[in-house]
Amino acid sequence: MENRNQTTHKNASFNLAKPVRCIIKLGGAAITCKNELETIHEENLKGVSSHLRQSMLSQSPSAKILGMDWSKQAGESNISCCIDDFRDQPSMASSPFIVVHGAGSFGHFQASESGVHKGGLDRPLVKAGFVATRISVTKLNLEIVRALAREGIPSIGLSPFSCGWSTSERNIASADLSAVTKAIDSGFVPVMHGDAVLDYSLGCTILSGDVIIRHLAAQFKPEYVVFLTDVLGVYDRPPSESDAILLREIAVHEDGSWSVVKPTLENLEVDITVAAHDTTGGMKTKISEAALIARLGIDVYIVKAGTSHSLRALSGELISNIPDDWLGTVIRFVK
Amino acid sequence: MENRNQTTHKNASFNLAKPVRCIIKLGGAAITCKNELETIHEENLKGVSSHLRQSMLSQSPSAKILGMDWSKQAGESNISCCIDDFRDQPSMASSPFIVVHGAGSFGHFQASESGVHKGGLDRPLVKAGFVATRISVTKLNLEIVRALAREGIPSIGLSPFSCGWSTSERNIASADLSAVTKAIDSGFVPVMHGDAVLDYSLGCTILSGDVIIRHLAAQFKPEYVVFLTDVLGVYDRPPSESDAILLREIAVHEDGSWSVVKPTLENLEVDITVAAHDTTGGMKTKISEAALIARLGIDVYIVKAGTSHSLRALSGELISNIPDDWLGTVIRFVK
Repeated sequence: MENRNQTTHKNASFNLAKPVRCIIKLGGAAITCKNELETIHEENLKGVSSHLRQSMLSQSPSAKILGMDWSKQAGESNISCCIDDFRDQPSMASSPFIVVHGAGSFGHFQASESGVHKGGLDRPLVKAGFVATRISVTKLNLEIVRALAREGIPSIGLSPFSCGWSTSERNIASADLSAVTKAIDSGFVPVMHGDAVLDYSLGCTILSGDVIIRHLAAQFKPEYVVFLTDVLGVYDRPPSESDAILLREIAVHEDGSWSVVKPTLENLEVDITVAAHDTTGGMKTKISEAALIARLGIDVYIVKAGTSHSLRALSGELISNIPDDWLGTVIRFVK
Repeated sequence: MENRNQTTHKNASFNLAKPVRCIIKLGGAAITCKNELETIHEENLKGVSSHLRQSMLSQSPSAKILGMDWSKQAGESNISCCIDDFRDQPSMASSPFIVVHGAGSFGHFQASESGVHKGGLDRPLVKAGFVATRISVTKLNLEIVRALAREGIPSIGLSPFSCGWSTSERNIASADLSAVTKAIDSGFVPVMHGDAVLDYSLGCTILSGDVIIRHLAAQFKPEYVVFLTDVLGVYDRPPSESDAILLREIAVHEDGSWSVVKPTLENLEVDITVAAHDTTGGMKTKISEAALIARLGIDVYIVKAGTSHSLRALSGELISNIPDDWLGTVIRFVK
C-alpha cells in the first residue's frame, strides 16, 4: 500500500464492490496503422475487442453477442441494434477490467507539431495544438469504445482531462478516480487514453497511456496487467533483427533493478541495457514502466495483440503457471 | 449567492481569473436534423460556430481564421492545418464562455428504446442503452467541438459523466466543477452536453442540457445566458400556427412566477399556460428553466440560431437595452 499516497486524490473511493481483475493497455501500434495518419487497424481492433469480450464476460463462447453500439456506422444511414434480444437477457456478470489505450497514429502529429508536451499554453500554437491533440485522441477513444461496445462490452470513455487529471512537471499531480470508481462499481468498463492535460509547472503536457496504467495499477492493485503490442513481447534488440531473442521472463528486484530470468543466456543480462531498442515500442521505457508495476506485486504480461497468447494472458491463465508454449514476456516481482 | 449550496460540490473552485461572460445552449433542434437519425445540420452548425467566434474572440472581423481541428475530415486522407500561421500570432484574448448542447437526433433513439431515463442499470437492456446513449451523445459532442475548433475557438469537450457528475432522483446531486474551472482558467471553452449519468436512487438517468445550463449559471453567475433554437423565440402557441405571437419579454418575479411584459396583449397572460406548446421545443419547460436562471439576476435570451438577432444576443449587446428591431425572447428578473 505504500504507493497509494504518492499523489493527491480528491475524494477517490477505492471501496470497489469487486476488486479490479485486470488493467489492459491497448498499444497504439497494435490498433492503429502507425504510418497512416489517424487510421485504425480495423481488423486488429476487432480481434482485440473479441478477445477482451471472451476474457471479461462470463458467457458461453457460443452465446449471441449483444452489441451496445447503436449508432450509425460510417457510410450507413440506419442503425442496427438488437434491442429485443436484451429484453429476456439475464443480468450479465463481468469482472472489473480497465482499458487504457495509446494514441498510435492519432494525436502524435498534432502534439509534435505544436510541442504540447513541452508546455507553454500562453503561446497560440501550443494552445491550438492542445485542442487539436484532444480532438484526435478523443476521436480514437470514441472508436475504441464503439468497437468494444459492438462486442457487448459495456465500455465507457473517460478522458483524463475531463476527469480533472493534471500533472506537475509531467508527473501525475492530481488524479480524481471517482468517475472511474463509479463506472466500475456500476458494471462498466472504463476506457481511458493518453491525453493532453494541464501541468502546474509547464502549463500543459502529454500524459501517456503508460503513466496512466502505472497510476491505476498502484491505486486499484489489479491481479495482473496486460500490455497488448504489435510484437510477441520484449526482445533483447529490435525485433526486426533476425537474431533478436524474445525475453520470456524478467525478474524485478526490491531495489527496482531487473534481470532476465528466461532465457538463461549468459551474455544477455549484460547486453540488455546497451542493446535496448528505445524508439518505436521503446523496450527500455516499457520494461522500466512495467517494472514499476511489477514491484507492487502485480504480474505484467507483454504480449502480441490478437493472438492465442494474448487471450491466455487476458484470461488470467498465467497467474499460477506460465506454460512453456506461451509466447510473450512476463515481468514479475521477486523478493 | 443563495443557490450555491443546493448541491454538494467536491473541491470546486470558483475563483476564476476572469468571470464567465456567457453560457450558451446550442439547442439540439438548431444543429441537428431532427428527423434524421444522428445527422448534423452542417450548414447551421457552421453558421452558429462562426457567430460564436465573432462574439468570443476579440479579433478584427477580417482576421484570418486559425483552425484548431487538425484531424482528418470524413472522406479525406490528409489533414489540413495552418500551423505556420500560429507561429507569429500574438496571444489571443477570449472572454470566458461555456457551451452546452442538446442531443437533437443523437442519443434520443438509444435512450428512449432502452428507458435509460427511468433507471434500472441492473437490467441488461438499460445498461446497454446507457452505453449506446453515451456513444451517440459523445459522437455529437466531438463533432461540435471540432466545428468550433475549425473556427479558431479553443474548445474542449467535457462530458458530465466523465467529470463525475451524478444525480439523485434526476436532480444534480454531485457536480464537480474543477475540470470546467481549470479549462476556463486556461483559456479554453468547455463544451458540455446532455448525458447519461448515474443516479443515486434510480441507478441511472438522463441529465438534460437545460438542467446543466441552470446548474452552471447558478455556480458561475455569467452576465447572460443565450438559448439558440430553431425558431425566433418563445411563442404563445406552436410557432407553426399562423397566428402564433412571439413573446418579446417575460418578467420573472421574486416568487418564481412569470408574466409576459411584451407584447402587451390583454388576453395573453391568461392563455399562455393553456396554449403552451410542450412537445418539441417545450415552451413551458423552456420558460420554467429560463425563469429559474433569470431569478438569479441573469438575463436569458432565447433566439433563433444563425441569425443577426442571435449574434447580437451573443455579443452582449442586449444587456443595456433591447432594440425594437431585435427579434427574440428576453427573460428577466424584475423585483
